[in-house]
Amino acid sequence: MIYNQLFDFLKDIEVKIARFLRNDTMNTHLKPDDIYIGATSYLFRPSKRLRPAVLLMSCGSVNDSIDESVVIPAAAGVEVFHTWTLVHDDLIDNDSMRRGKPSVHCEIEALCQNKLHFNESHAKEYGRSVAILAGDMMQAWSIKLFASLADNGFIDAAVALKLIMILETEIISNLIYGETLDVRYGYGFHEIEDLLKLKEDEIINMLWLKTGVLYSFSAMAGAMIGKNITDDKDPVVSALKGFASACGTAFQLQDDILGITGDEKLLGKPVGSDIREGKKTTILLEALRNASPQQRNYLSSVVGNRAAVPEDIEKTKSLLIELNGVDYTKQLARKFIKNAIPHLDIIKESQYKHLLLLWANYMIERDF
Amino acid sequence: MIYNQLFDFLKDIEVKIARFLRNDTMNTHLKPDDIYIGATSYLFRPSKRLRPAVLLMSCGSVNDSIDESVVIPAAAGVEVFHTWTLVHDDLIDNDSMRRGKPSVHCEIEALCQNKLHFNESHAKEYGRSVAILAGDMMQAWSIKLFASLADNGFIDAAVALKLIMILETEIISNLIYGETLDVRYGYGFHEIEDLLKLKEDEIINMLWLKTGVLYSFSAMAGAMIGKNITDDKDPVVSALKGFASACGTAFQLQDDILGITGDEKLLGKPVGSDIREGKKTTILLEALRNASPQQRNYLSSVVGNRAAVPEDIEKTKSLLIELNGVDYTKQLARKFIKNAIPHLDIIKESQYKHLLLLWANYMIERDF
Repeated sequence: MIYNQLFDFLKDIEVKIARFLRNDTMNTHLKPDDIYIGATSYLFRPSKRLRPAVLLMSCGSVNDSIDESVVIPAAAGVEVFHTWTLVHDDLIDNDSMRRGKPSVHCEIEALCQNKLHFNESHAKEYGRSVAILAGDMMQAWSIKLFASLADNGFIDAAVALKLIMILETEIISNLIYGETLDVRYGYGFHEIEDLLKLKEDEIINMLWLKTGVLYSFSAMAGAMIGKNITDDKDPVVSALKGFASACGTAFQLQDDILGITGDEKLLGKPVGSDIREGKKTTILLEALRNASPQQRNYLSSVVGNRAAVPEDIEKTKSLLIELNGVDYTKQLARKFIKNAIPHLDIIKESQYKHLLLLWANYMIERDF
Repeated sequence: MIYNQLFDFLKDIEVKIARFLRNDTMNTHLKPDDIYIGATSYLFRPSKRLRPAVLLMSCGSVNDSIDESVVIPAAAGVEVFHTWTLVHDDLIDNDSMRRGKPSVHCEIEALCQNKLHFNESHAKEYGRSVAILAGDMMQAWSIKLFASLADNGFIDAAVALKLIMILETEIISNLIYGETLDVRYGYGFHEIEDLLKLKEDEIINMLWLKTGVLYSFSAMAGAMIGKNITDDKDPVVSALKGFASACGTAFQLQDDILGITGDEKLLGKPVGSDIREGKKTTILLEALRNASPQQRNYLSSVVGNRAAVPEDIEKTKSLLIELNGVDYTKQLARKFIKNAIPHLDIIKESQYKHLLLLWANYMIERDF
């Protein structure tokens, strides 16, 4: 499939979202300087801006005459919302890198050791404190952007309010539920036997919670803004929501695949970290189903072992592929996309619908 | 002054806010159980509910015929907003107690050691993770409550949206600015000489950021809801805002006084912790101004020393009183209340105005 049209669209959005956020009045509220750095750092690193793209495509697919400036605050809002969860998740997961650079708590730690001359332990503590507060500020920023939707008079205040209501109830609750389960699973499964007790649909539900949910919101918000309606049960809104929800889950399955077979340089994060962290994936589950007792023991000794040596990571990667884990997960991801596409039947043909279909396929064909 | 009328009003609000929050639909979104516990724990401990009270009094003072059920979501919303900042602040400040019981991160740590059988270090980490996520969820909860204001048709969607906009821009930014400075000052002043460089108005500004700001919002929100207007520059709205802002700063000055002269049992937190933490107060500043070089050296050795023994804490308390720190701060607090009261001149007489005036005086006469 030729993705040029999608890539051009994404490139355009990347520029527009970054420019919009740079000029947003919220910048003046990010005080002191450390909070400013913490709250803006990830936002201006190169990023695919897929959630804003889904929001804009979805909006365009129901109303292709809407002025882009009316919708862009919501597109930026969904990006900022996604990003605050990254700041807090990185802190919780002790991840030191994000988008090719230090994560917020590490960035601030390093910065204030140099600038404020804090000692090592104060610097570490301060980095963590700023990451918490900067994330809080970013949640507020994203809500502020949705609240500003009604400013220009094209979108009803009730529509903006409804979107905020959905975002701050079911969307955030599912995201936080997913993250909490993720943290809990990370401690709870000390034996591979425990993983086998985890059902496939529980793993997939967690992928949906962590990723599908916000994609589904992006599509829903785009459609509700495009139609200027508060009805989230509207057939077109529901169709786009169902479509993006399934694609979002496929996106996360593909993420798990790239965590095994991907290219570190393209991904901006170390391949193999999923293995070391003992991440619960359908890849691992399927491989375990097909493993001999000896292979199971071996996997059990490497997966979740933070000190695993590179040779063992390589061998484990090969084993996960050999035992059908990767292919099985590819099939699953394809199934999600296949099921997603018919949702769009009720959407009339347009360049935006075409972009949405391209995006769906890109979810499982992307290599970073 | 006889406060019975105010106390009856507060007692009534305490019951109503707790009942409202217990029955709010948000409860179903608090998943899993640890997030539920973390997000509700402080809310249902005994509390004075002063911010909801200010919101309701302010609303009543501009519109005494409004149905209380219309306003109560906002009153609960401002309480939840205040409370999420406590959850994150306690984590950042490593405070182990709040309202007489363990703080959220400690509560969850203890709970999951018993229930989920995590080891000590996982339990500690998990407690901290849940405190971050539960605080995030509570910010969302408070916004959800403001978003629901327009549900019953009495308050315009635009008013609810405007309140969310103010809360998520200037209010949160000032609170977070204050907390960040507080954390920074905590590391930055290793010498008493450094404290003397900090000007009195910088200390007072920090008190305003951490406390006055949210009181001022509570009053403003009450007035805007009572009048069902989006204009935050309306003279009556501005008057109530200015009044509550000054009272809130006085509240915090009184808090600092009680941190030295208060009764531990009434306060629910150890008296002397302000001294051990090296909290920058006008009490300390004034005492240092009046201290002999010898006394300065002594204060310098105890203030900010987390391992200070009880005898030194007692001696320091006496010295801060003797060197006029407490009386000076009492005068300051009285000045704030004296300046606050004329703001209410344009508010017509009513039982609510009477309650507001009682509340103002209570700010500096309360002993817990």
